[in-house]
Amino acid sequence: MEFQAPKGTRDFYPKQMAWQNFLFDAWRRVSIRNGFEQIDGPVIELLDLYQIKSGGEMVGQAFRVRHPETEDEQFAIRPEFTPTLARMVAEQANTLPKPIKWFSIPNVCRAERPQRGRLREHWQWNLDIIGLDSMTADAEAIFAAVDLMQELGLGPEHVRVKISHRQTIGHVLSKLGVADDKMVNAFELLDKRDKIEAQAFSQGASKLGLDGDRLDRFDQTCRMKYAAGQLHLLRQQIGIEENLEDLEDLDEKLTAFGIAPWCEYDLGIVRGFAYYTGTVFEIHETSGAERAIAGGGRYDNLIELFGGPKMSAVGFGMGDVVISLVLADKGLKPEDVSPRPHAFIIPEGDDMTGQVTQLAGQLRQQGLHIRFSYKSTRNMGKLLKEADAAHARYAVIINDQIQQDLVNLKDLDSGTQSQVNASQLPDLLQANNTG
Amino acid sequence: MEFQAPKGTRDFYPKQMAWQNFLFDAWRRVSIRNGFEQIDGPVIELLDLYQIKSGGEMVGQAFRVRHPETEDEQFAIRPEFTPTLARMVAEQANTLPKPIKWFSIPNVCRAERPQRGRLREHWQWNLDIIGLDSMTADAEAIFAAVDLMQELGLGPEHVRVKISHRQTIGHVLSKLGVADDKMVNAFELLDKRDKIEAQAFSQGASKLGLDGDRLDRFDQTCRMKYAAGQLHLLRQQIGIEENLEDLEDLDEKLTAFGIAPWCEYDLGIVRGFAYYTGTVFEIHETSGAERAIAGGGRYDNLIELFGGPKMSAVGFGMGDVVISLVLADKGLKPEDVSPRPHAFIIPEGDDMTGQVTQLAGQLRQQGLHIRFSYKSTRNMGKLLKEADAAHARYAVIINDQIQQDLVNLKDLDSGTQSQVNASQLPDLLQANNTG
Repeated sequence: MEFQAPKGTRDFYPKQMAWQNFLFDAWRRVSIRNGFEQIDGPVIELLDLYQIKSGGEMVGQAFRVRHPETEDEQFAIRPEFTPTLARMVAEQANTLPKPIKWFSIPNVCRAERPQRGRLREHWQWNLDIIGLDSMTADAEAIFAAVDLMQELGLGPEHVRVKISHRQTIGHVLSKLGVADDKMVNAFELLDKRDKIEAQAFSQGASKLGLDGDRLDRFDQTCRMKYAAGQLHLLRQQIGIEENLEDLEDLDEKLTAFGIAPWCEYDLGIVRGFAYYTGTVFEIHETSGAERAIAGGGRYDNLIELFGGPKMSAVGFGMGDVVISLVLADKGLKPEDVSPRPHAFIIPEGDDMTGQVTQLAGQLRQQGLHIRFSYKSTRNMGKLLKEADAAHARYAVIINDQIQQDLVNLKDLDSGTQSQVNASQLPDLLQANNTG
Repeated sequence: MEFQAPKGTRDFYPKQMAWQNFLFDAWRRVSIRNGFEQIDGPVIELLDLYQIKSGGEMVGQAFRVRHPETEDEQFAIRPEFTPTLARMVAEQANTLPKPIKWFSIPNVCRAERPQRGRLREHWQWNLDIIGLDSMTADAEAIFAAVDLMQELGLGPEHVRVKISHRQTIGHVLSKLGVADDKMVNAFELLDKRDKIEAQAFSQGASKLGLDGDRLDRFDQTCRMKYAAGQLHLLRQQIGIEENLEDLEDLDEKLTAFGIAPWCEYDLGIVRGFAYYTGTVFEIHETSGAERAIAGGGRYDNLIELFGGPKMSAVGFGMGDVVISLVLADKGLKPEDVSPRPHAFIIPEGDDMTGQVTQLAGQLRQQGLHIRFSYKSTRNMGKLLKEADAAHARYAVIINDQIQQDLVNLKDLDSGTQSQVNASQLPDLLQANNTG
């Protein structure tokens, strides 16, 4: 009998898991310092929950779940977290202090063909601000995303926040002849541009009124990028009468937050979901080598759709897979982030097994990461090698003198060794651990 | 449209989530300092994986999962983690260093009727030692469980590790007339004793050869508890010829680890799963008020069943629900463990919004948890009240003097206020934060 993980899912052995924890800890740390509180919901939800948002496009991607005995309820493994978030906000909208600033790190599952950067199960950092009708919310969400990039060692030379606005894109498309009632379909199609065949794309575009020439003009518009402080150039490009109030307001706040060098305005960013109502943004590697690292925007109508009051909302999602690929591409993904033992206890002479156990128990209960050998060998060279393999910071070598509170402490980085009091080990080990 | 979380699952709003994180951090911290490495696997597995262990009793409890389009593969949401662990060990048994010491914190789902202490989705701390054929492994697993109890503020007066051994129970049952081929059924029945109707239990017992009188004698045996160091009394009780080598060895190691006062030997503990082969143990509240906090034991044949080599193994699982109930029962569950902001920035005078944003961004990028008000009010009293409601440690009050690097720092715990350099805020706030 041999089994493997289902296609498109992953086993996390200790080294891979240490990286997941490293990434999740960064997500959590950055979220908290930006004033967000963590939430979570069930891994299964009623399938109907995914019918509401964006007309059910998620339902086709959801793994279906049923109770082994009863057939009357139909569940799905969550393919995304936003419907859970909207349900939770709607349920307690009257009692929650506003604005609601929440983050979550759920695993989500999609029954698609696995591709590079897109697996059947992945973990997603979701960050949302609900109930704050000001571009401060959009700016703060983008700031948190940039703060995370910087926390992982990335700079404006590696990644770029590409910002756009649904109304601005709508204005351009409208001038090119796309009817208002086709606008949502146009957004969906344009979002897929790099992911589908060229022919399928032009056919779709032509149906929306974007024939060859007009599509070229749209493409031209999308090729222009505008740095922070240069929105007047965008206005000139798309027509002086267009109101860019939201983006100008956002631009000012991104500059105040000190992250203007990370950001640019790019009308090529549209996002596929129908529910976005204003700002949309994605984070991309500057070379464009991988899929989007993160994507989000403003969705002012969604909470109402789930039974809550009308509340403005802005947020983004970032998966664990693409950010890890980008960090690896840039040589910024650490080789091994496993926790390092404070000490490895080594007995010198026979009959010390009980003392090793006792000392290990005492030190662990004081918060120290302690290991020892399970082998019966008393060969000092072999035991020191095992301590090294465990990447321990110190070896604590004990013999009969432990009855006089004396042990030998060997620094495994420098190789120096000295006799110390066993009772001082907690302080000595805690002070000098680097892992 | 109104939706709720599926029956038996939970929404974690910020306060509940803070508790989950507090508990998971304790699980992780204790695991790591005891030398365990974290792993995880997919939330879905092939349904067949749950047929192997214990003859498929888990299959009936598993939520079934299917791909929305294809019917050929049958998945389940994991109802427990041990089959995933066994699969992962079997896959890499030849290359993994031994012993394998792993822990995990998966969510698992069971399609049962929800009860107090037993929900349809819960998180489970799993801790296992594989490939170490010595009672040191059993003792170390139990030590880690006790270390966790102590970390959460529990003592031997609150909880008890109840230890038994499948062969010892088998010996007693055998003497009472239970046939060898009925032994596994007897273990399953005895494990359910407190959970099923008295009549159903005696009927089941009678089928196994345990009629009224013999059942009474078994009950008597189960009522006796033996403290550490008193295994000779157990030998006298059950017959002098019984070999208690394993338990005597374990007893010695639990004493060396310093946790003898937490442990007792109790033949009433049998565990239901068929796959246990030696030591079995459970942790219970001393009053017996809640379900078992944790349960585990030795399972030396399981890795082989999943296609790996023959490897000894011992481990336990602890759910998040019962331990939280026990801590609440004992008054040991903290009211609120939400992270505390280092500071709340308050503008004094008009037109400071940009400076608030800038300072917040700078301090957050230096690792500090910073909040500010989204309201347009400049009323100092109201803003200080908001800072207090956010439970911030300090208020940083800024006015025009920030251009001379000067801000006012108000300690919100003591009420004292002083003027400091803005450039020193990172050090000042970091040094004095208590949350």
